[in-house]
Amino acid sequence: MSKKLTSRKENYSQWYNELVVKAGLAEQSAVRGCMVIKPYGYAIWEKMKAELDRMFKETGHYNAYFPLFIPKSFFTREAEHVKGFAKECAVVTHYRLKTSEDGKDIVVDPDAKLEEELIVRPTSETIIWNTYKNWIHSYRDLPILCNQWANVVRWEMRTRLFLRTSEFLWQEGHTAHSTKNEALCEAQKMINVYSDFAEKYMAMPVIKGVKSANERFAGALDTYTIEALMQDGKALQSGTSHFLGQNFAKAFDVHFTSKEGKEELVWATSWGVSTRLIGALIMAHSDDNGLVLPPTLAPVQVVIVPIYKNEDQLSEISPKAEEIVKKLKAKGISVKYDDSDNRKPGWKFAEYELKGVPVRVAMGPRDMENGTVEVARRDTLTKEVVPMDNIDYYISDLLDTIQKNIFNKALNFRNENITKVDTYDEFKEVLKNKGGFISTHWDGTTETELKIKEETKATIRCIPMNNEKEEGKCIYSGKPSHQRVLFAIAY
Amino acid sequence: MSKKLTSRKENYSQWYNELVVKAGLAEQSAVRGCMVIKPYGYAIWEKMKAELDRMFKETGHYNAYFPLFIPKSFFTREAEHVKGFAKECAVVTHYRLKTSEDGKDIVVDPDAKLEEELIVRPTSETIIWNTYKNWIHSYRDLPILCNQWANVVRWEMRTRLFLRTSEFLWQEGHTAHSTKNEALCEAQKMINVYSDFAEKYMAMPVIKGVKSANERFAGALDTYTIEALMQDGKALQSGTSHFLGQNFAKAFDVHFTSKEGKEELVWATSWGVSTRLIGALIMAHSDDNGLVLPPTLAPVQVVIVPIYKNEDQLSEISPKAEEIVKKLKAKGISVKYDDSDNRKPGWKFAEYELKGVPVRVAMGPRDMENGTVEVARRDTLTKEVVPMDNIDYYISDLLDTIQKNIFNKALNFRNENITKVDTYDEFKEVLKNKGGFISTHWDGTTETELKIKEETKATIRCIPMNNEKEEGKCIYSGKPSHQRVLFAIAY
Repeated sequence: MSKKLTSRKENYSQWYNELVVKAGLAEQSAVRGCMVIKPYGYAIWEKMKAELDRMFKETGHYNAYFPLFIPKSFFTREAEHVKGFAKECAVVTHYRLKTSEDGKDIVVDPDAKLEEELIVRPTSETIIWNTYKNWIHSYRDLPILCNQWANVVRWEMRTRLFLRTSEFLWQEGHTAHSTKNEALCEAQKMINVYSDFAEKYMAMPVIKGVKSANERFAGALDTYTIEALMQDGKALQSGTSHFLGQNFAKAFDVHFTSKEGKEELVWATSWGVSTRLIGALIMAHSDDNGLVLPPTLAPVQVVIVPIYKNEDQLSEISPKAEEIVKKLKAKGISVKYDDSDNRKPGWKFAEYELKGVPVRVAMGPRDMENGTVEVARRDTLTKEVVPMDNIDYYISDLLDTIQKNIFNKALNFRNENITKVDTYDEFKEVLKNKGGFISTHWDGTTETELKIKEETKATIRCIPMNNEKEEGKCIYSGKPSHQRVLFAIAY
Repeated sequence: MSKKLTSRKENYSQWYNELVVKAGLAEQSAVRGCMVIKPYGYAIWEKMKAELDRMFKETGHYNAYFPLFIPKSFFTREAEHVKGFAKECAVVTHYRLKTSEDGKDIVVDPDAKLEEELIVRPTSETIIWNTYKNWIHSYRDLPILCNQWANVVRWEMRTRLFLRTSEFLWQEGHTAHSTKNEALCEAQKMINVYSDFAEKYMAMPVIKGVKSANERFAGALDTYTIEALMQDGKALQSGTSHFLGQNFAKAFDVHFTSKEGKEELVWATSWGVSTRLIGALIMAHSDDNGLVLPPTLAPVQVVIVPIYKNEDQLSEISPKAEEIVKKLKAKGISVKYDDSDNRKPGWKFAEYELKGVPVRVAMGPRDMENGTVEVARRDTLTKEVVPMDNIDYYISDLLDTIQKNIFNKALNFRNENITKVDTYDEFKEVLKNKGGFISTHWDGTTETELKIKEETKATIRCIPMNNEKEEGKCIYSGKPSHQRVLFAIAY
């Protein structure tokens, strides 16, 4: 491992950038804004995918795959949608390269120009609704509950690994329903799935809410969101679920015959989470020593490091370590025994700390004598000497404890950083000195929202679900307001 | 279900096209040459992926993700590679759309032209080796055993669902090694993994072999292949593994310091299988009634259909059916109880036959009286009445039997369709009247190979591994040959 990370206090942004690279999660590629997700980072994504995919299937969804390319004309059909995405599209215009006239170079063949340009999907509503048109005839064909795991491209000008990249991996659910109510329930169901996933697996508390009109997905009637708080006091939108009404059915002419024999437009939702979640995971829990991963998503949950001075000592330790490996695997715990001899234990300790392995077990000659091992927790950085007997039960419980502790720590931090304010001065003061979510009154207009954003960079993250009604005055316009909303500076 | 499939005898190609669509596997999209993989087809791909991914991991590989786009200049670095792929590249030239001057249309923004065009990856050797350059410094960094699950694009002029599409899904392994021998072993190991997968899971016998120079991957020193035989006597290349020598290391300047402290070029392999395998699976086993799926890859292995005239009968059948469902699930068998009342049993039988569900269980009032069920096999289209007791054991065994039977049937067919010939006239006659693999002598030159291809459309599918040495004369040139090779007309 190379030299220490920049501390969070020193420079949070630099700490994040260094950590992503040093922990071997991802790196910039030769293509502007596109990242390489390295094996360790991808292993976390695989764990996330597996849990999410299971949750989607348990709620009745199935996977399919739709084309990477979208004809330009599809894009223009839904007016709001194209407005939202046109400015950041990768456009395919040709389908062949050829050798240049002088034979020295490879150039785009001008004779191979496409009649209609193709957009690399930034999201797939348009191509999917054009497909659904042929799948849906009668109410019997509904609902359609498709999800797709895919890569998408949004040509971002300022990119950061995981948080904002030109290409990213995600899943996008696209469902079709015969009634408005069913579609609304679906959109809400999926934001609940995301919220469960974030809290149970990522150990990251989130606030569920509805977006203001200005922050809605391009083409949606309502956008539900889960918002998490990072350690620097900024919010991170971690997943969204959209009630699309009949907008895409209208744009792509998707009707169905109802039970009563009437022709009706189909109702739609879409919902997605992306590799951005890895960025959220890192920023929610990690510390100045490196990653802190919740056990449920850690590619390696336990590492065992032998401490020895000679081969004799190692040959005493190894069989005991292998025994523990076997016991832990039998409990479904992923474990690595690192007896590599090209690195010292101290180096290994720092490396696994950097990589966020939740539990480290060290075994030395004295442990052999005493029938003990030394167990270190990544989350608290504490150590304990415990008996080797029943170590599997001990570690299994400890992993649960760590999972809960990481969540509770993040929850306390989040709760301490929701501040109620009632004046614009207070608002600006909290933003400047404390950060976090600010719960305050807003008059409900996009105009006010944009003014506040312009002046402070804070945006409305959401109107929390099940929000209490409370009469008040908008901090900006002084107009009446009936509930508090959550503002924050966001990633 | 709509009207019957065209029979294989009538028109094999049409049979295939109809089957893919009617069984709900895939369909053409609005984008030329790109397919929509529908939920049922994608479910098969998910099963394939899961097994392959497990096999890759068991052989020490791990997943990562590299960018979708490749800078044009990377392409030109390996001369053979660019020759092989330049003619079928989707090229991204712009990164923004805008509203046209008259405000009526959305057009490509000419101000958003990329300085260097980006190629949508047709395969990722170039971008990956450019990345490996930074990962590899010393022999300690080797081997690298990365795999990626991804979409790729090759702009095909004539496309067919699964078999040849402009966009397809695949995995591509890219490994880096310190010695030639290690890389050669890796390339061979992976062709063995593919062959095991094809035979054990797809129930599809394959011939492992080496490609002739002319049929090699663009940039490889050797290409290993698995070749399967379809029911129409055409061969289908089902997976390839390439020994790339030091070509990409040279092109991207990837060196390492050996144990002895010397600077050396890195050795490479790459290997891949794609959604084409779904096409192979369909064509290897299916019949005029629809899909025949091997139980290991069938999304639903058993379907239970109640036969009833009234609600009373149904309410007697359902608890028994649910009991069987529970027992089968406990054995890890995927099962569906189809008690939907909007379709008659006959319709359901035909539908599940079309979809290739390996085992169908029918339960009617007489079965209730006798404590029996009727079990139908999809592979043989035979039925049997069996006791309800221990039906889970019976079905579990039956699934194994079906798996073996499907494989053996394909194996017999394949073996009967390897024909030894010793003259060019015989060669042409067998090609015309019988098809299949032709085992014959060839002089080893690309010239002869291309002449034969031009005159007969047959290509050398492979030089089988562990081929017997046999002296003979090339059927085309009469020149000496030391072994037989396999020719066939191929997909």
